[in-house]
Amino acid sequence: MARQRQERAVRTRDALIQAAAETFDENGFSGAGINRILERAGVTPGAMYFHFKSKEDLARAVIVEQAAALRLPEQPSGIQQLVNLTLYLAGEMQRNVRFRAGVRLAVDQTEGGVQDFTVYEWWGEKFRQELLAARARDELLEDVDEAECARVLVAAYTGTQLMSQLSTGRADLPQQIVAMWRYLLPGIARPRTVSRVTVDAALSVAA
Amino acid sequence: MARQRQERAVRTRDALIQAAAETFDENGFSGAGINRILERAGVTPGAMYFHFKSKEDLARAVIVEQAAALRLPEQPSGIQQLVNLTLYLAGEMQRNVRFRAGVRLAVDQTEGGVQDFTVYEWWGEKFRQELLAARARDELLEDVDEAECARVLVAAYTGTQLMSQLSTGRADLPQQIVAMWRYLLPGIARPRTVSRVTVDAALSVAA
Repeated sequence: MARQRQERAVRTRDALIQAAAETFDENGFSGAGINRILERAGVTPGAMYFHFKSKEDLARAVIVEQAAALRLPEQPSGIQQLVNLTLYLAGEMQRNVRFRAGVRLAVDQTEGGVQDFTVYEWWGEKFRQELLAARARDELLEDVDEAECARVLVAAYTGTQLMSQLSTGRADLPQQIVAMWRYLLPGIARPRTVSRVTVDAALSVAA
Repeated sequence: MARQRQERAVRTRDALIQAAAETFDENGFSGAGINRILERAGVTPGAMYFHFKSKEDLARAVIVEQAAALRLPEQPSGIQQLVNLTLYLAGEMQRNVRFRAGVRLAVDQTEGGVQDFTVYEWWGEKFRQELLAARARDELLEDVDEAECARVLVAAYTGTQLMSQLSTGRADLPQQIVAMWRYLLPGIARPRTVSRVTVDAALSVAA
């Protein structure tokens, strides 16, 4: 019985996070009504408050869990893996509603919302690790500052994502990420690395 | 009398746009209350409805007029002017509330708001004109596609602006734009142009 209760609690929590992600993705934080989320999840207010005290709590859970569900490389390995990672993320933006909702919550400037800089810092650190691996493999130009460059990449990625969403509902996001790399790679990687790296929108489909 | 009335109408319209810009800048589109805007402008609902039928109308006016008030170069002239333009815009984001509000309205994903892609296209075209001038001056690398590159620059700028706002309230925006150029210029301009162009955060202060 205790085990059944526990399983049900896990399912309820997951249904709430899924429903919240779908609603935040469609309406943003301030436009997402708690009632809509509860209806979608098929959960009562009482059952929700056992897991989440507020819409802010739910939004925080979406942000934390979207990252946990991604299939990310275990070890940093340099420029090719960094490129692959940005294309994989472009594909996730197209097909994974929790990831999409987490990004929207981070980008939207909601009043009294949950917005903070943590998500950008987390990705900046991931990118920096790949750049450090690239440095160890002698793939980087001499004067590249790994932390600064990682931040520039996160910023460029964020803006590309936003524009692709507004113009095509993200249909062209992988192609736009390819274009971004076209102009950024020569300022980051050595010419021999630039000529070796594959930047292909098809990489957004496979993982 | 007719002239006085006209002048008063112009002042009322301007007060409404200023109050709307301040409120959108602080609270975003969905968080901005019409009453707060009217109070701030010292204008009655009746006087507002003579100029603007809705909050959407006001937001559209802020977006259109923020661009009109900028001091932009009359003729495109290439890479240096493009760099200067991005730094001038960084300064305007810091000191000009109408510009800031217009950008926030364009970036925010409000429910039922005024968001569209036009602002990005407008800036993309400005940037493209500078790149075409750069091409005529033989400043660009051979395989740069001016339209694609302009779009990448607008995306990188947009993401940089967003991250700077979240992390430092835009205090470091000029420095972050300098960092952006550091990694983008070598993929866009010929080496001799890269070595000649000045990219200095101090350019954000003067116009």
